Amino acid sequence: MATVTLSLVVSKCKMPLLLFLLVHIDLLLCQQFIIPFKAPSDCGVEEFFDISSLSCVKCGPKQRRSTTGLSCVCQTGYQTVIADKLSVTCQQCPRNKPAVTKDGFGCIRCPGSLTDEGKCQCPQGTVLVERDINGNLLDEARCEACNGDSPALTIPNRNGDRCERCQASFFNSSCVCKSPNVLAGGLCFPSGSLSTNVNPSVNYPQLKFSVQSAWFLENLYSSSAACLVFSNLTACQALGNMCVMNLHSFSGISTDACGLFNTIFRSRAALSSTQDISYWRVNLPWLYYGDEPGLASRVLQTNPVPIGFSFRERNKNTDIRLLAAVYNVRGEFLRWEPVGGSNLQLCPQPVTKQAAAFSFGIAYQESCDLSVDKLFDTHPEPLFYDVFMDLGGGENKKLLPLPTLVQNQQYNGRFINQESMKNWYLTRRMFLVDTLSGREKSLTSTPKVIRVASSVKIKFQLVPRTQEGQVYPPLMIVTYTDVPINDSKTRTVSTTFTMEYEMDQNEAHVKTDTALGVMGGVAVIYSLLKTVSWKRRIASPLIDVKTTLKFLLFYAGDLANVFFAVTVGTGLYWLIFYKAQQFVSVLLPLPAQEEQFVTYIGCAFALKMIQFLHKLILQVSVDIFFIDWERPRSKTSRTVQATGESKRDPAPVSIWRTYFVANEWNEIQTIRKINPTFQIIAVLFFLEVLGFSNLALRDPWSTLQRSSQDYIPSYSLTLRYGLAATLWLCIGFLQVICFTVIYERFVEDKIRQFVDLCSVSNISVLLLSHDCFGYYIHGRSVHGHADTNMEEMKNNLKREAESLCGQRGLLPNTEIQTFQVSLTKCLRSQYDRIRDSLKRSGPSMINTSETQHKAYHTMNHFLGSVIDHAYSDMDYIVRDKLVFERIIGMEFLEPTDKSIFYNDEDHSFRDVLFYGNEATLLIFDTLFFCVVDLGSQSFVLAAVLTYAQQTIFRFIRNTLGRKNLGQKTLVDDRFLI
Amino acid sequence: MATVTLSLVVSKCKMPLLLFLLVHIDLLLCQQFIIPFKAPSDCGVEEFFDISSLSCVKCGPKQRRSTTGLSCVCQTGYQTVIADKLSVTCQQCPRNKPAVTKDGFGCIRCPGSLTDEGKCQCPQGTVLVERDINGNLLDEARCEACNGDSPALTIPNRNGDRCERCQASFFNSSCVCKSPNVLAGGLCFPSGSLSTNVNPSVNYPQLKFSVQSAWFLENLYSSSAACLVFSNLTACQALGNMCVMNLHSFSGISTDACGLFNTIFRSRAALSSTQDISYWRVNLPWLYYGDEPGLASRVLQTNPVPIGFSFRERNKNTDIRLLAAVYNVRGEFLRWEPVGGSNLQLCPQPVTKQAAAFSFGIAYQESCDLSVDKLFDTHPEPLFYDVFMDLGGGENKKLLPLPTLVQNQQYNGRFINQESMKNWYLTRRMFLVDTLSGREKSLTSTPKVIRVASSVKIKFQLVPRTQEGQVYPPLMIVTYTDVPINDSKTRTVSTTFTMEYEMDQNEAHVKTDTALGVMGGVAVIYSLLKTVSWKRRIASPLIDVKTTLKFLLFYAGDLANVFFAVTVGTGLYWLIFYKAQQFVSVLLPLPAQEEQFVTYIGCAFALKMIQFLHKLILQVSVDIFFIDWERPRSKTSRTVQATGESKRDPAPVSIWRTYFVANEWNEIQTIRKINPTFQIIAVLFFLEVLGFSNLALRDPWSTLQRSSQDYIPSYSLTLRYGLAATLWLCIGFLQVICFTVIYERFVEDKIRQFVDLCSVSNISVLLLSHDCFGYYIHGRSVHGHADTNMEEMKNNLKREAESLCGQRGLLPNTEIQTFQVSLTKCLRSQYDRIRDSLKRSGPSMINTSETQHKAYHTMNHFLGSVIDHAYSDMDYIVRDKLVFERIIGMEFLEPTDKSIFYNDEDHSFRDVLFYGNEATLLIFDTLFFCVVDLGSQSFVLAAVLTYAQQTIFRFIRNTLGRKNLGQKTLVDDRFLI
Repeated sequence: MATVTLSLVVSKCKMPLLLFLLVHIDLLLCQQFIIPFKAPSDCGVEEFFDISSLSCVKCGPKQRRSTTGLSCVCQTGYQTVIADKLSVTCQQCPRNKPAVTKDGFGCIRCPGSLTDEGKCQCPQGTVLVERDINGNLLDEARCEACNGDSPALTIPNRNGDRCERCQASFFNSSCVCKSPNVLAGGLCFPSGSLSTNVNPSVNYPQLKFSVQSAWFLENLYSSSAACLVFSNLTACQALGNMCVMNLHSFSGISTDACGLFNTIFRSRAALSSTQDISYWRVNLPWLYYGDEPGLASRVLQTNPVPIGFSFRERNKNTDIRLLAAVYNVRGEFLRWEPVGGSNLQLCPQPVTKQAAAFSFGIAYQESCDLSVDKLFDTHPEPLFYDVFMDLGGGENKKLLPLPTLVQNQQYNGRFINQESMKNWYLTRRMFLVDTLSGREKSLTSTPKVIRVASSVKIKFQLVPRTQEGQVYPPLMIVTYTDVPINDSKTRTVSTTFTMEYEMDQNEAHVKTDTALGVMGGVAVIYSLLKTVSWKRRIASPLIDVKTTLKFLLFYAGDLANVFFAVTVGTGLYWLIFYKAQQFVSVLLPLPAQEEQFVTYIGCAFALKMIQFLHKLILQVSVDIFFIDWERPRSKTSRTVQATGESKRDPAPVSIWRTYFVANEWNEIQTIRKINPTFQIIAVLFFLEVLGFSNLALRDPWSTLQRSSQDYIPSYSLTLRYGLAATLWLCIGFLQVICFTVIYERFVEDKIRQFVDLCSVSNISVLLLSHDCFGYYIHGRSVHGHADTNMEEMKNNLKREAESLCGQRGLLPNTEIQTFQVSLTKCLRSQYDRIRDSLKRSGPSMINTSETQHKAYHTMNHFLGSVIDHAYSDMDYIVRDKLVFERIIGMEFLEPTDKSIFYNDEDHSFRDVLFYGNEATLLIFDTLFFCVVDLGSQSFVLAAVLTYAQQTIFRFIRNTLGRKNLGQKTLVDDRFLI
Repeated sequence: MATVTLSLVVSKCKMPLLLFLLVHIDLLLCQQFIIPFKAPSDCGVEEFFDISSLSCVKCGPKQRRSTTGLSCVCQTGYQTVIADKLSVTCQQCPRNKPAVTKDGFGCIRCPGSLTDEGKCQCPQGTVLVERDINGNLLDEARCEACNGDSPALTIPNRNGDRCERCQASFFNSSCVCKSPNVLAGGLCFPSGSLSTNVNPSVNYPQLKFSVQSAWFLENLYSSSAACLVFSNLTACQALGNMCVMNLHSFSGISTDACGLFNTIFRSRAALSSTQDISYWRVNLPWLYYGDEPGLASRVLQTNPVPIGFSFRERNKNTDIRLLAAVYNVRGEFLRWEPVGGSNLQLCPQPVTKQAAAFSFGIAYQESCDLSVDKLFDTHPEPLFYDVFMDLGGGENKKLLPLPTLVQNQQYNGRFINQESMKNWYLTRRMFLVDTLSGREKSLTSTPKVIRVASSVKIKFQLVPRTQEGQVYPPLMIVTYTDVPINDSKTRTVSTTFTMEYEMDQNEAHVKTDTALGVMGGVAVIYSLLKTVSWKRRIASPLIDVKTTLKFLLFYAGDLANVFFAVTVGTGLYWLIFYKAQQFVSVLLPLPAQEEQFVTYIGCAFALKMIQFLHKLILQVSVDIFFIDWERPRSKTSRTVQATGESKRDPAPVSIWRTYFVANEWNEIQTIRKINPTFQIIAVLFFLEVLGFSNLALRDPWSTLQRSSQDYIPSYSLTLRYGLAATLWLCIGFLQVICFTVIYERFVEDKIRQFVDLCSVSNISVLLLSHDCFGYYIHGRSVHGHADTNMEEMKNNLKREAESLCGQRGLLPNTEIQTFQVSLTKCLRSQYDRIRDSLKRSGPSMINTSETQHKAYHTMNHFLGSVIDHAYSDMDYIVRDKLVFERIIGMEFLEPTDKSIFYNDEDHSFRDVLFYGNEATLLIFDTLFFCVVDLGSQSFVLAAVLTYAQQTIFRFIRNTLGRKNLGQKTLVDDRFLI
């Protein structure tokens, strides 16, 4: 029975325990191991905190807990007795020896009173003696006075149990600082050395109040006096530190820290300066550069640092080695510390990331929010850094002091360092966190304010036109933030560490503007030429508003190209010259310097948009007509009267060929030399998958893959644009080349197919893009008939393949089927007359329809006759275009008497299709992609929106183009599928 | 002249200076402010480091530098004399007082010899007395012996200038530890308490050597003895720490740290245990859980922690509050420390990121490489952590000790904790960095090895089927790495901190497998049905290898769907239930638990691929024929002899309508209900731009935007798959709906357009997807003729729009134009016979061509006649399909006598196009996308490859389909553009 219960309990632990026997087993198996939390402060007076069991344990009899709370000591009046195995018992002292010795193990008689702890107490200036010189315990303790006169010069030590020599500054005052001498900070100053009227306040301009600092109260006078009178090195440093804690600020009064420093500084003018630097006086820390106006620019922009930075190859040198002399708040020199890791960077980051800050050329910026109460733990007192740049040199290492610009520094109430460089007042020495100076009552109280270097920026400026990577002395810019402490638990303070590399961009801007000006000028000429050509083609000699508008439209396109060329050139320049340079000779423009560049890109995009829309509108309003050469078979005569009599014809000419051709024309409207989707996907692949986007980071490396351990700087807009545009153009060009060289030659060439189709289907196409200019595709079948059955079609094709029939050209024995045509005004007006009746819509549908068809046949007949030279007054000649004419896109000959058909083997009728405007489309897409990316910093979003843009415009072009085609050729929309 | 030169110098500083006068100006203006680097150690013996000028400055006469190097002291034998303004001079001591006092200010006579520094030296056991009790300097110093006997019990203090009470353990041995007592670590142990034969070696199994540790040598015996004999609490902790430094390892010998600990542990068995925990003995630290087999699982998987975690709402509780009792290496209790920030995480990271580690549910893992020499600075000696979980409870806060699993722990040479859970030996207390125990010679020497906790993992296990977010006690898994110190400058050690949340996935696996089994079974039936249907449609009753193969192919498709449904369901389940739960009831599968899931996805993809290829092959080999109903106009009789006599016809039937229809058919082959590119771009937009990808992070938050300050955990494959597949399907469905409901209705419906076109062009289409099954589109023009001119076409269309003519259907007065057809074998064999001659290619092209055309006409005539019921033996009936027939996709009636035409208003002929197989394509694309993403963890790459895949397959389908169309319909490829 018992065993059964036992196993039950083992499996179900929550069951009430019936058997006392099982309690222990249950504890073993199901115990939760939960203990109550106790801290040493939770224990009572007669308990100590057992560090083994982490609980409070009662002390032995007559014992109470020690100050740490981790052990017990005997109560007042009880001496400690060590029993066996070091256990402590307490024994009351006898009546005649009521006091306990300082070590607690003995009882003693006191000469005077007892302390609260039951130990002997001696009057001030005396020491307590409990043992004789050999260590034997006296029966009665003695209080002995220390001899303060020369030559003994002693005072009681801190413990009050021994006489020691007093501080050296007392030497002639016998350990008592007698009036009129001044006792301060444990030193005795001779009277009249420094007025004791000092101002111990720390100013917090951000919070608009100042604090009477306990630290300043205690140390400002003594440090100043010791520095001035005794030339005490640490005292001078301590005074300097107080000035630094006051942000180097001069107020009107000269009794604050910086005022006192300056007083002493001036008093040292007679002595030679330290290290040959006139701002650095003997015994004093170097806190200020001079206050001469314009000194800052002389210091920062006159002499290059004698080392050169190089990104690559043998001479690779990207290490910025900074060294800091570190002082504590008391002015003691602690150590030389290499700057790096976390000493200037308050934000915790992995070492590899922090190290990137000191690699030349990486635009490093790291921000974080620091919890204020953590700062109390980590920075109980401020450390002061004098930062130098290590110039190397092996044994004879040289250092270059870094000038510091404190943004909050005040000079008689003005924030001079936030003004122009002329007014800057450079300084040295900085601190990161000061939780000390804001303590008002005592040094252990909670500070009212803490001060944090919320922004530390080290700025390098490249020497203009350097080829050796030379820089001017780097400038350290520090901004401090005052954090009032009310509820420190919740407060955080944000802090940033930045490395900035700047170069003078004026030259680059001038170059860009020059290029823009010159090319913009050329573009004017080119646009003028286009306008003239356009005037010719519409056969209008007048210069009117429309002409000006047209000129502006042309100019928009050309200017867009200029802007595009200049911006892509600039982007590419930076990409290549910045990323590929060995010795540093160029540095990226800073975000603020990129504004002009971004404006140019915006202009390019806006202008290109205008050009694109202009072209789109022209394309969807082009005049087109399909001339059907097919004549009914039953009649032998070819000349059919242009009347409605064709209905009597037993076998009407089938319209299906026209449908077919129209359908094909509809389909080729938006084909392009590139596949736009492939373009987007490919660009995305390169940028995001292969990691080309990493080339746009603001660092000098040109690797595509970055590890997650590396520091990733921000992106440069210039590089991003250069990269995206270049990549887009490159892939576009590659696609165009592949398309024209491979695809069109070996797979299919839609344009050629269309021309072939015209020929096979016995249909010519007349396209009029301008009033008197257009394109003509000669599609007259060499076989006379195309409206036939399959056998004949195949035979025809076969015969043609075997060259058994004539050639397709317009002129006999030529192959040229495509022409640019310059029409005479006469021809055009005739054309317009017929076209008008074709367009005109009457009140009744049927009538209109009939009129339309009549007009269609008339037009068909008319145009056919024109091509057949049937009208002598509207005849034409065929000639080749001059090379120069081709180049500038203008015809020199004016078609006055005869229209002119220019041979055009290049199928330039594609100009009215997307196909012939690949450059415009490609540039527009590129700019669209780049503009979205610059706005959003996301290549994926840019790709998505570019896709949407392309789709929408393609849809618009297709829909409007189809409608236009239907209107102009009378082909029913339903067959344009 | 002088002024000119001056201004010249100002502008060109490098100019050689001619005038001495200008030197100073030059210095002011062009000086480089470069100083040489000097450290205190660089200064000579008679120099001190001037902390103001940071240079070495010569000391005064008779002075040498002090030990810090920052000031000067008098040389040996010279006393310090303070002159005016605290300046120090040195004065030789007189002959009769040759020694300098300890404070350096006086001269004194010595009773014995002098030290090297010129001070008095006393023999051991005595103290040097230079001043009398009142501080007066003696003429001659005295050496006094300390009385070591009771009751004085004194020895000289550290400075050797005073007698102090000796250590308590000496109390009965009069400050001398007399034999046989043992003196160790400043304590005097009674003889026989513990054998002095202890083993002070630290074992490094990874490096296969052990080190005789200086720390162990010095402290192991004394700590053990003090713990055992005096029950000294800190000594016990110190002993425990040594055992921890030895990784809790028991070797065979019992004289190493853990052996000694165990000895003392066992000796305490009689006493009651601490806090009711039997593994925690009085005065000892708790280092081990018991070594009973299976204890680990009882500790870890029996009792839930009495708090519940919740992700959301009012009860939100995600804070993991850990507390650690921190001890130093000497066994002193330092503090209770909340775990968080950087105390267990060695990698420096911003506070906000580190805090994420202690938010329940975030799969935190942070790794970094630490520089070994930095560790020496930051961790001069190890700290030991006893980690507890804070269970809350306000005043009565409760703590749950975290069991620790030390991976490197050895138990008699076996790494038991790397074996199965049954053998685990849980422990407590851990350290992070130990640079102490590896020091061999002395405590200040460079260690031979340092030990770093290279992996700290805290693992939570959810209580199965909890609805209240309950977990079992978390387990801390620690792995230490031994780093041999040879050249510490370059060595780094990698370290990781991980939080892992696990739940038992067996149940989920069983559920998944069950679902797979059931649905797989249903799929078998469905595939069998399909196979039967297929057998019917090819009219073959035999069950042969081909049938089996076909069944397998069908089954592949269905099984792929099953796998797909199950995996998407699982992914979605996790996405919803994990991300949306309030009280924690499920946790994500760990990467190791996801293997099965990934396998299923792989299966789904592979099977879907097979199905897709199968369908593709079927589609590009479909039989198609265009039946031209048009008859030549000149003949009144419709029945033309199926011979080549048509040539005599004056107006042959134009082939262009056939071309047009074929061309359109060619174009609709690959249209789909979704736009695949839009699909990809949209998915990418959601995932990458809108940030949906953040939903797949291994944390419980469902926000889309993460700040760069947040910790970003790794991705869960399950969630990634669930998310990507769901998004893909959703966008796909949306597209399908938009396409069918909006686009097809209001913009264009390509399929309907094609059917209309057939009707308008007087051409019927017969598609045979199986031997005896196919589709028929009835396109006979209601106007009798379609081969006509534009007017008539328009009139015809208008008449039809106004319902002035008959309806288009096959049966009179019906509109149904599309049919599924079940052919009789007889019809099919007749069809095949004609088709054979169409395919057969003779030796000469012309002959073939003629034969082909003859066959074409024959076929045209034959099929036209069949449709016209001309052959009574190959007649057909038209009927509706039963609902059930539609559902299972099988015909019940077998076409024995007559073929059967099933009305099919749904245009199901699209099954032989991409259009009709949208589901298969969508699922295939989804799987493709997901598989690439799972492999590469990059949605962009997945999108790029999916685009490539779609393009390639579309190209293949188009090319092969076009070829097939050309072959089967004799339409020249050149017209399929």
